[in-house]
Amino acid sequence: MFARQLRLVRVAARPLTLPRICVASRFYSAKSVPLTAETYREKVERNPNFKALESADVDFFRSILKDDNYVITNEQDLDFYNEDWMRKYKGQSKLVLKPKTTEQVAQILKYCNEKKLAVVPQGGNTGLVGGSNPIFDEIIISVANLNKIRSFDNVSGIFKCDAGVILENADNYLAEQGYIFPLDLGAKGSCHVGGVCATNAGGLRLLRYGSLHGSVLGLEAVLPDGTIYSSMDALRKDNTGYDLKQLFIGSEGTLGIITGVSILCPARPTATNVAFLAVSSYEAVQKVFVGARRELSEILSAFEFMDGKSQILTGKYLKTDHPIESGEYPFYVLIETSGSNRDHDMEKIETFLGNAMEEGLVDDGIIAQDETQLRNLWNWRECIPEASTMAGGVYKYDVSIPLADLYALVEAASEKLHKAGMVDFESDSKPVVEAIGYGHIGDGNLHLNVCVREYNKEIEKVLEPFVYEWIQEKKGSISAEHGLGFQKKNYIGYSKSDVEIRMIKDIKGHYDPQGIMNPYKYV
Amino acid sequence: MFARQLRLVRVAARPLTLPRICVASRFYSAKSVPLTAETYREKVERNPNFKALESADVDFFRSILKDDNYVITNEQDLDFYNEDWMRKYKGQSKLVLKPKTTEQVAQILKYCNEKKLAVVPQGGNTGLVGGSNPIFDEIIISVANLNKIRSFDNVSGIFKCDAGVILENADNYLAEQGYIFPLDLGAKGSCHVGGVCATNAGGLRLLRYGSLHGSVLGLEAVLPDGTIYSSMDALRKDNTGYDLKQLFIGSEGTLGIITGVSILCPARPTATNVAFLAVSSYEAVQKVFVGARRELSEILSAFEFMDGKSQILTGKYLKTDHPIESGEYPFYVLIETSGSNRDHDMEKIETFLGNAMEEGLVDDGIIAQDETQLRNLWNWRECIPEASTMAGGVYKYDVSIPLADLYALVEAASEKLHKAGMVDFESDSKPVVEAIGYGHIGDGNLHLNVCVREYNKEIEKVLEPFVYEWIQEKKGSISAEHGLGFQKKNYIGYSKSDVEIRMIKDIKGHYDPQGIMNPYKYV
Repeated sequence: MFARQLRLVRVAARPLTLPRICVASRFYSAKSVPLTAETYREKVERNPNFKALESADVDFFRSILKDDNYVITNEQDLDFYNEDWMRKYKGQSKLVLKPKTTEQVAQILKYCNEKKLAVVPQGGNTGLVGGSNPIFDEIIISVANLNKIRSFDNVSGIFKCDAGVILENADNYLAEQGYIFPLDLGAKGSCHVGGVCATNAGGLRLLRYGSLHGSVLGLEAVLPDGTIYSSMDALRKDNTGYDLKQLFIGSEGTLGIITGVSILCPARPTATNVAFLAVSSYEAVQKVFVGARRELSEILSAFEFMDGKSQILTGKYLKTDHPIESGEYPFYVLIETSGSNRDHDMEKIETFLGNAMEEGLVDDGIIAQDETQLRNLWNWRECIPEASTMAGGVYKYDVSIPLADLYALVEAASEKLHKAGMVDFESDSKPVVEAIGYGHIGDGNLHLNVCVREYNKEIEKVLEPFVYEWIQEKKGSISAEHGLGFQKKNYIGYSKSDVEIRMIKDIKGHYDPQGIMNPYKYV
Repeated sequence: MFARQLRLVRVAARPLTLPRICVASRFYSAKSVPLTAETYREKVERNPNFKALESADVDFFRSILKDDNYVITNEQDLDFYNEDWMRKYKGQSKLVLKPKTTEQVAQILKYCNEKKLAVVPQGGNTGLVGGSNPIFDEIIISVANLNKIRSFDNVSGIFKCDAGVILENADNYLAEQGYIFPLDLGAKGSCHVGGVCATNAGGLRLLRYGSLHGSVLGLEAVLPDGTIYSSMDALRKDNTGYDLKQLFIGSEGTLGIITGVSILCPARPTATNVAFLAVSSYEAVQKVFVGARRELSEILSAFEFMDGKSQILTGKYLKTDHPIESGEYPFYVLIETSGSNRDHDMEKIETFLGNAMEEGLVDDGIIAQDETQLRNLWNWRECIPEASTMAGGVYKYDVSIPLADLYALVEAASEKLHKAGMVDFESDSKPVVEAIGYGHIGDGNLHLNVCVREYNKEIEKVLEPFVYEWIQEKKGSISAEHGLGFQKKNYIGYSKSDVEIRMIKDIKGHYDPQGIMNPYKYV
């Protein structure tokens, strides 16, 4: 079976700059998005300590930003900023500010802090937990106009830019210099470099290049009182005092607004290969992973897995046949290698796949023959989020679980929904399409997507806190890379101890005593 | 010239477990170490808010620790803990406590905090900036008895241990499992896993495996009030709240005492190669580096450079001839590759060296033919610290500087000392042997060692603040990996802004309001 499809032909060694089909684009149904404050009426109420916006405030902001284009008050224009891209959350902000400089951000925050005007920092607004949208009337401060690349040093690989630079633009710029941004994710066409730092995004390259806590060298951020903190001059190594920038990485806009990022970028691999494999059990998926890490070692750059149903849905979304034509399989694996010598890499892949076939771990497979094929194979992984929402919506759980138990969560969630009589994969008779699973095996990171035909409290009750309790029992994390935002604001206790939660609240209180920064979220 | 020595024979693929010649062992001269409080009388005075130790306090500690071996009060035994290994700093502590459990650490700190007894946390005491030694009568809390490996998961690579586990023991344990500790340094035979985290040590593998901010997954630490913070259960990805552990990484014992470490360990490379090259200019060193990063790419695991004088001194120390026999050169480079396929790696090295020779960048070179040779070549890099102190002592500056200017600091320091008439490389007539330079080019990290025949205020005056001002002008860091400790306590302003210093002091005040944790140091 395998040999029929397996064609060991190298892909072109050009940088990967082809456009992708799937980026986090808005999923628009005809329905309007219900207000978060109404949907979650029993969970959240407006903090009366916050001042309501007055026209004098807007006048002040206009005086700072000068240009009317940077002050948005028109209801229709506001929708884009009030709603999240999944159209699950909607705030009621009456004002979006789009400063052009860090100093303007500082003036705005200082004013808001003094007047007790609550704010929500916003980057590309591609988050998945409602963290970048207001709940009530918080002012939205978008960094979209802070969009300049500041510098790049092509000896050290240090790249500096404004927070609002779109990730794909940064990566394309780096590609021209022979470098790569050490993070990649589906939303790269919309998300911001500052936003991925504020949320400590993980994404597709973490397996190879590690977390942002390691690769970000410096940040510029504005504190609630208007203080501008900067460690943008930091070199690769600097052991002079506490590493303050780390606090902002993953703080989800609750401590300050990131306005600049300095990050260490690796040399761009000149040879990239992708293999897409069909595997008949989750146990085999794990074994293939252990083998890949051993035999592909330093060239392994991604190891993604997808279950069978996620691929059926993606097939419907892409309206094409699956690249593996020999039938439907319970699991699929996408393996990417990135190296500096194509012949060496291909030899390693051949050895690895030969062994995996000999051990009976892989049922069928295909290797990209050129860059178009390579991108097409990636699409079968990257389009799952869009495919998940096709029927109407999706409940997303992004979790870390020890590898052995990773997929069992999907099975448990599916079973629970089936028992509740909520699931029908084919017809529209039931509210749930199915619970599907995919993710970054290499990082122990599962995406459980419960694909639904409508957002519905009954489904939510079946899933929560069940999913979180299940994860807690396995000592996993209820948010591997998406953050907590609004969605998981009440569930931090499933992954953090009382001591940790107290320390987090301490830090929050220390830097933001008025609590104006992204309120009603996880801290 | 090159071809004569260059023998392209692979080294054995066994893990590197041979003992090294050079570990950070104490340099003992006949002289006794002067008290830090006397040497730096004008810089530091005892904080009268701290209570002096009374016999009732010692009784209390004995009641907690039970065993008298864990409570050291004998003057001679105290010396080991009061002095640093360079024998430059000496404190006056009358008490060393060596708890066996995290709970005991918590009880001790809680008591000290209530009684205002100042403490100094101590790991392997191999630091280079006097950070792990008291200045006055601070109680030393050694974690040497917290020395158990807690667990290792050989699917995820997550290793957990007590803070007092010696780095080399951790790495040897991991080697048996096919894994590697993502940090290595000369002092590995003495330094502790907790200590390298507390000081954010960099070392020899940073180029390949990144900083501890990326690889440490969780910490257990005791706060001054006795609270035990733990994130030891964290998986590779966890985005639930601020990443609190980051505060402790590099805090040098000023916020709490690290008692446990969870760290992600990579698979141990099965093929390691080392090349040692002679290079005739610093410009050529940089070009060789750029070429190595491009052509050795994913297998490059170390790129170290050494100047000619550092090698002459090391030759005297090792009492052997230099591996490059064709003469003395101004610069040497040690390149290490680590990969999963020996043939591939050797082919890449051959191509790379061939190109470097063709471009005239490399004058001579040798490639290790077996593991003994490999260790011997590494010794010429790793023994420089010991060789530097042979004449009597060394002033060490561990700095980050943009690559182009890196070596110019050594030249500038040497020139300044020569102009002051202080230098004689051969005879004992002058106090200074020479300013030498070596370090991790790949990380932009220079070690400037001013080798001296005696520690002497006049030398210090020539060097400081000159060296720090020079670095500030180049926007470098005055401490790349050693930390600030006592040595650089007054110089943080050369690398950090007022805002950053204020924020650091804020955090310190927040967690340690009594200031009992490692006082008189950089914060």
